Amino acid sequence: MHFFIFTIFPDLIGCFLRYGIVRQAIKKGKVKVEVVDLRAYAPKGQVDDEAYGGLPGMVLKPEPFFNAYEEIYKRGFKPFVIATEPWGKRLTQEVVYRLKNKKEIAIFCGRYEGIDERVKILVDEEISLGDFILSGGEVVAMAIIEAVARTLEGVLSEPKSLEEDSFSGRWIGYPVYTRPREFKGMKVPEVLTSGDHAKIELWKLWHRIENTLKKRPDLIPQDLTPLEQEIVSALKKGLTFEEWITSWRPSSS
Amino acid sequence: MHFFIFTIFPDLIGCFLRYGIVRQAIKKGKVKVEVVDLRAYAPKGQVDDEAYGGLPGMVLKPEPFFNAYEEIYKRGFKPFVIATEPWGKRLTQEVVYRLKNKKEIAIFCGRYEGIDERVKILVDEEISLGDFILSGGEVVAMAIIEAVARTLEGVLSEPKSLEEDSFSGRWIGYPVYTRPREFKGMKVPEVLTSGDHAKIELWKLWHRIENTLKKRPDLIPQDLTPLEQEIVSALKKGLTFEEWITSWRPSSS
Repeated sequence: MHFFIFTIFPDLIGCFLRYGIVRQAIKKGKVKVEVVDLRAYAPKGQVDDEAYGGLPGMVLKPEPFFNAYEEIYKRGFKPFVIATEPWGKRLTQEVVYRLKNKKEIAIFCGRYEGIDERVKILVDEEISLGDFILSGGEVVAMAIIEAVARTLEGVLSEPKSLEEDSFSGRWIGYPVYTRPREFKGMKVPEVLTSGDHAKIELWKLWHRIENTLKKRPDLIPQDLTPLEQEIVSALKKGLTFEEWITSWRPSSS
Repeated sequence: MHFFIFTIFPDLIGCFLRYGIVRQAIKKGKVKVEVVDLRAYAPKGQVDDEAYGGLPGMVLKPEPFFNAYEEIYKRGFKPFVIATEPWGKRLTQEVVYRLKNKKEIAIFCGRYEGIDERVKILVDEEISLGDFILSGGEVVAMAIIEAVARTLEGVLSEPKSLEEDSFSGRWIGYPVYTRPREFKGMKVPEVLTSGDHAKIELWKLWHRIENTLKKRPDLIPQDLTPLEQEIVSALKKGLTFEEWITSWRPSSS
């Protein structure tokens, strides 16, 4: 996976590449990130100019994007080109899994009032992090790089982590605990230290379902299994996990 | 506005603060960002540990968050505390404008499989950038800092830019152009260089509406003005702006 990040802040992206999972992915040779300094491709180093038609801010000029893109193209790359735009397609895990199959991805980071519209003929997809406004696309680019990098084979030292992700299964995550067992009077739920693996799995499912009902009811699946249906009913009756589990017996379903 | 960013990658956040609008906001004294190195508050420097109940990855321990939070509290701060969680409330411009009224905001950046659940008693709100998975909350923290900073009074050199934002008005943005007037055979729309300000305003509104219909139909307002209604009808008939404007006369409405 080869990224090309078109930006007027190459050092910001460069810095980002030195930490965490992205650093690991680069070290392992799973990801390559080339930072394209738009200023180096701008006529007289001028990357932006006033907007035609009057607009309070500045617009990124077309030349740096075309010049840099053409150079990459001549080197034999044909990247899938993303522009960061507030009204673009929202980044989701589904989009991440689609992007991870691209061999080369270029990300055009907007700045100021935007990128000259004529650059859009190079762009395959506009992507957004949501309905809020950033001053530039660099944070969007970082989100895309990090989200994609961690899904690439061999990047996470525990690939099973991917299966445990929220949005990868049917329900969102459950609460997690680590040492110490008791902290400021707050104890880790007993079941998690019981060694009873079947019960632990039920506890996790219970809390995934509880979390989803409480925090993301829009994600409740349509096709509940009998066990999931039982847990939903118990939660709606106001039962706690302990109350439910002591009376519950696995049915033949 | 005083931010406290709790992270195991303090240098990554530190680097982010040196660029763009966030740098400007700090220089102008509108924003202060304290980066809290969780490792410095961890017993023996150990910030994470294995999850109880078995989980492939690691969980951030509770002590560093409590230790660092208590120190800030003793210094007289009582920050609004945000934790980055994939299922949290989605960051929107509405959330940004709510956050901008807080005096102090702490952001707890998650990492690995998550933060020990007991830390959540310190947390006022969980925030997410959407339904995708990052390896950590640092990119979320950067998005919040940048989105909030640019809305603070005196930060943008062109405060009118805020009014032109997508999601701040009734429609999303319109295409922007800058010099050169012609580039690779592509010309800037003539109206934008005409000096006819009334026509330019109509062109912008036309393209805001066109963009919204095409890219974010979910954002079409319910209460269209007569002019907006006319433009929507013309667009649905397949008219171009030039075709519409030559026949259009402002009505008394």
